[in-house]
Amino acid sequence: MAPSDSTADSTPPAPGVDPRVRRTRQDVLGAALGILTDQGWDAVTHAHLAAHAGYSRATIYKHWPTRTHLLRDALLQLADIPHHPPTGDLRADLIGEMRAFRDGMRDHGLDRAMAVLAEQARGPGEIAAVRDELVTGGDRVVRQLLATRLSGTELAVGTKMLSGAMFYSALMYGQIPDDDVIVTAVDILLRGTVAAEAG
Amino acid sequence: MAPSDSTADSTPPAPGVDPRVRRTRQDVLGAALGILTDQGWDAVTHAHLAAHAGYSRATIYKHWPTRTHLLRDALLQLADIPHHPPTGDLRADLIGEMRAFRDGMRDHGLDRAMAVLAEQARGPGEIAAVRDELVTGGDRVVRQLLATRLSGTELAVGTKMLSGAMFYSALMYGQIPDDDVIVTAVDILLRGTVAAEAG
Repeated sequence: MAPSDSTADSTPPAPGVDPRVRRTRQDVLGAALGILTDQGWDAVTHAHLAAHAGYSRATIYKHWPTRTHLLRDALLQLADIPHHPPTGDLRADLIGEMRAFRDGMRDHGLDRAMAVLAEQARGPGEIAAVRDELVTGGDRVVRQLLATRLSGTELAVGTKMLSGAMFYSALMYGQIPDDDVIVTAVDILLRGTVAAEAG
Repeated sequence: MAPSDSTADSTPPAPGVDPRVRRTRQDVLGAALGILTDQGWDAVTHAHLAAHAGYSRATIYKHWPTRTHLLRDALLQLADIPHHPPTGDLRADLIGEMRAFRDGMRDHGLDRAMAVLAEQARGPGEIAAVRDELVTGGDRVVRQLLATRLSGTELAVGTKMLSGAMFYSALMYGQIPDDDVIVTAVDILLRGTVAAEAG
């Protein structure tokens, strides 16, 4: 499990950090994530990244001494993909948040990064901790929205049914979900849980 | 996309085939699937498999000239994981089928094999065709059950919400779904779609 303060590592260095250092980090990690989602886990090496991002291998090794450091920080950038800002309308907010998830898949390779995480996080360890941190953060808004009407197992399962439908469609059917799929999933979930309250 | 008759490849050779050949195929493919789910995609090589399964490399090359042939046939064994035989009680049948999916994850590494497929099937090609064939077959029973009350987008989305919740729980939360999760997901889906009929 990720330590409670580990999200600090996914944010840029503190404001006092030299802007050139910050820029280098951003450039290299952006390139690393691109290589990861396009070419897969094994392609993210210091040498390949140096050639691709235009920095020396020495610079990259200085910031990230091992491939694990590099892969971890590259993946944690996904925590910065924007969520939907809640408006107070539950249905609209769930649809908005699922669209943000979909846009992350379409525009940032989030689905492919998640596939890599699923494949690599086979046991406990550094990469499983990265996966746990990204999933917990990724589902935070959906869970908060659904917590206005669900709790316990229903809250956990409702979250997994929504996010899971998007993830499964992208990774197993090769179909990034469209608006029709998103709205249909939200409506089934809301009807399924409204009826639960009434019963 | 898989050709329409491609499921024939996932079944054992025709009854006329020498039982020793059939046994060799089963042994080698079983070992290959075990290596794939335990150690990952790159570990499935003719050499590693020969050492592991106790057959000569020459024998393995004779049956599967390339790694792609080997990986394809190893993965297609997953099509043989048993489904729940429908009884006519929709709720019980959906719960039974999700339990069969869960048992496949727990007992046959189905979740890890699906993670490998998601990661490797990045574009069209042989492995994407294997994924499509396994997913279509894997979801067939759920889809048939839900088709008694849903159609069109709702049928597709309902299937993805159920299977997706199981898949997402296993791969992203590292939690093979328990019976409580399965029953809760089925009940949310059934309530969500009963209300749709009534409305």
